[in-house]
Amino acid sequence: MAIKPIEYRDGVCRMIDQRLLPTEEVWRDYFDYQGVAEAIRTMVVRGAPAIGVAAAFGAWFGARDIDEEDFDRFFARFEKVCATLAATRPTAVNLSWALERMKNFAKANSSYPVADIKIVLEYEAMAIADEDIRVNMAMGRHGQELIPDGARVLTHCNAGALATGGFGTALGVLRAAQLAGKNISVLADETRPFLQGARLTAWELQKDNIPVTLICDNMAGYLMSKGEIDCVIVGADRIAANGDTANKIGTYTVAVLAKEHGLPFYVAAPTSTIDMSLADGSLIPIEERDAREVTHCGDKQIAPSGVAVRNPSFDVTPARLISAIITEWGIARGDYGEGLKTLMSRVR
Amino acid sequence: MAIKPIEYRDGVCRMIDQRLLPTEEVWRDYFDYQGVAEAIRTMVVRGAPAIGVAAAFGAWFGARDIDEEDFDRFFARFEKVCATLAATRPTAVNLSWALERMKNFAKANSSYPVADIKIVLEYEAMAIADEDIRVNMAMGRHGQELIPDGARVLTHCNAGALATGGFGTALGVLRAAQLAGKNISVLADETRPFLQGARLTAWELQKDNIPVTLICDNMAGYLMSKGEIDCVIVGADRIAANGDTANKIGTYTVAVLAKEHGLPFYVAAPTSTIDMSLADGSLIPIEERDAREVTHCGDKQIAPSGVAVRNPSFDVTPARLISAIITEWGIARGDYGEGLKTLMSRVR
Repeated sequence: MAIKPIEYRDGVCRMIDQRLLPTEEVWRDYFDYQGVAEAIRTMVVRGAPAIGVAAAFGAWFGARDIDEEDFDRFFARFEKVCATLAATRPTAVNLSWALERMKNFAKANSSYPVADIKIVLEYEAMAIADEDIRVNMAMGRHGQELIPDGARVLTHCNAGALATGGFGTALGVLRAAQLAGKNISVLADETRPFLQGARLTAWELQKDNIPVTLICDNMAGYLMSKGEIDCVIVGADRIAANGDTANKIGTYTVAVLAKEHGLPFYVAAPTSTIDMSLADGSLIPIEERDAREVTHCGDKQIAPSGVAVRNPSFDVTPARLISAIITEWGIARGDYGEGLKTLMSRVR
Repeated sequence: MAIKPIEYRDGVCRMIDQRLLPTEEVWRDYFDYQGVAEAIRTMVVRGAPAIGVAAAFGAWFGARDIDEEDFDRFFARFEKVCATLAATRPTAVNLSWALERMKNFAKANSSYPVADIKIVLEYEAMAIADEDIRVNMAMGRHGQELIPDGARVLTHCNAGALATGGFGTALGVLRAAQLAGKNISVLADETRPFLQGARLTAWELQKDNIPVTLICDNMAGYLMSKGEIDCVIVGADRIAANGDTANKIGTYTVAVLAKEHGLPFYVAAPTSTIDMSLADGSLIPIEERDAREVTHCGDKQIAPSGVAVRNPSFDVTPARLISAIITEWGIARGDYGEGLKTLMSRVR
C-alpha cells in the first residue's frame, strides 16, 4: 500500500520530510498554522494535492487558536490565517482551493457558536485529506484504461502518493493499472533541481514493487527516439479552463518530445486542480525559486560562485499537446473547454 | 583569453582536473600513456577535441617508452598503445582521429631510425594541440556570422576552451562573435549527470566576462516558449556523413525544442569530428556510463539504493533538425551529404 505523507491525529499533523528522502525517513509534527506554512514554503511537503491537504490542517490549527467568540471577528482573523497559508506557493491552485473550502465551510456555519465551528473545521480538514485518497483511486480507475498492458511509461516529477493525501494522481493511475493486472514499468525523470523523480518517485515505486528506472531529464528524448517509451503521464499544479496545464518545470519539454514521437501525453489531476477562473495557461502564475536550488545539489556547490541563474519551478503545457486529462469524474479529451466544463458540472 | 586545459612541456602533459571545477582548480601531471588513458576514461579531461589532443600526447608517451629499434616491432607495440587509448571512450571520433594521425605519421616515417620517429611524434602531438586552437579560431570566424548582435544563445554541455586545445568550438563561435563587437548572452544548460554546463561552461564564460545564466536542462523549453532564446549552438562528438550528429545526452531534446519554436540550431565542430565512414547517425556507438553518475551528485546519494538506472552519455540529433554545421573550412547547410563532402575535400 502506498505511503500517506500526511497523517493527522488528535491535533497533531505529522508529515514526512520530503527534502530528506530517500536517504532519511524523518517525520515531523506540526501543531500550528505558522509551522504548516513554513513546511509548505520550504517543501517539507510538496505536490499540488498534498499542499492542499496540509493547508487544510494549517487552517484548522489557525482557527482553533483564534480567541474570539464573535463570528465576524473570528472570521476576519481566520481569513488572515488562510492568506498566510495561501501566500506560501503561488502556482498550485489546490492550496487556495482547500483554503476556500475551509473558509466557505466556516461561513456556511456562521450562525453557530465559534466553538462549534472550530469542531466542524477539524472534521472538514480531515474530510479533505480522506477525500483526496478516494479521488485518486477514482482517477486511477478511469485512467488505467488508457495504459496498455506492457506499457513503458515515462513520468516527470512526483505525482505519486507523496504528492497527495495518498495513492497519487499520475502514479495512482499506474498503481491502478498494476492492480488491474497489467504489467507496466516506469521511467522516472530525476526532475532537477529538487529531484522529486530521483528522490521521491523512485523511492515510492520501489516500495510498491512497481518496476522503475531512473533517468536524467535530458535522456527522455533519446529513449523516445529509440522506441523505449510508450506513453507519458504526469500530474498537474493548475489546469486552466481551456486545458492548458501548469506542472513541474520540464513537463512542457516532455510534451513536445511526446508530440515529436507520436506518443500519448496524459495529465492526471483531481478537479480541485482545475481553475475555471483562468481562460488559459498564460494567466497561471509561475513561481521562481531560489538560485541555490540550481547552484547546489544538497550542500554541494556545482556552479561557480556568483553565476546568474533562472529557476522557474513550473511551466505550462498547452492543451494541444495533451492527449487526455484524467480526473476523478472521468476523462476529458479533444475540446477541453467543453470537456472540463462538463466534468466540473459533476463535482458536488 | 580562454583557458588551455592541456599544457605540454618537456615530456610532461599537465591537465586541469575537470571533475573538480568550478570549486577547485587542480592541475595534474601525466608522464605515461596509461595515466593519460585513465584521465580520459575518468573524465579528468573531456570534450571531443580535448580528448583527441590528450590521446596524441598519450600516444607520444607510449611511443617514447617502447624499447625497440626495429620499426615493425616498434609499430606493433605502438598500435597496442593506441588501441588502449582508443578504448577509453567510444563515441567521440576525435580520439581515434588523433591516434590514426599519430600512427600514420609513424608509418610515413618508417624508413627513419625509431629514435628519430620518436622525436617527430612528439612534435606531431604538439602540432595536433596547436592546430586545434587555430582550427577553433577559424571556426569562430566562420560561425560568428550566424550569431546576430544581441543574441541570447542557448548552449548544452561544454563545447568551450575546456573541451578543446583552447578557445572552444561552440563557445569559440560565441567568443568570436563577442570579439567582433556583438553583444551576446549565453544560457547554459547544466547538463546532467556530469554537469559540464554548470561546472565548466559557466566557469569559463564567467572568467571571460561573457554574460552567462545557468539553467537546469528541463528549463530550456520553458524559456523558448517565453521568447527568451534566439538560437542554439552546441559542439559535437561525432558527425556522420549525412550530418547526423552525436553530442552530449540532451542535445537531441534541445534540437526538437528549437524546431518546435522555429529557432536556429547550430553545430560547431572541427572536421576531425566528421566521420565520413559512417553513412548515418544510427551507426555511431553510444557510450552508457556508470549508474552512480545518476544516483549521486558528487558524494551525495540522490536516489534510493538499488534503483535501476539508464545513463546514455550521448544522443544523436538527426541532420534534419540542424540549421548549419560550422567547421574550420566553412559552413555546411541543407544537403549535408554534399556539404560535408565538399568541406572534407578542403582538408589538407
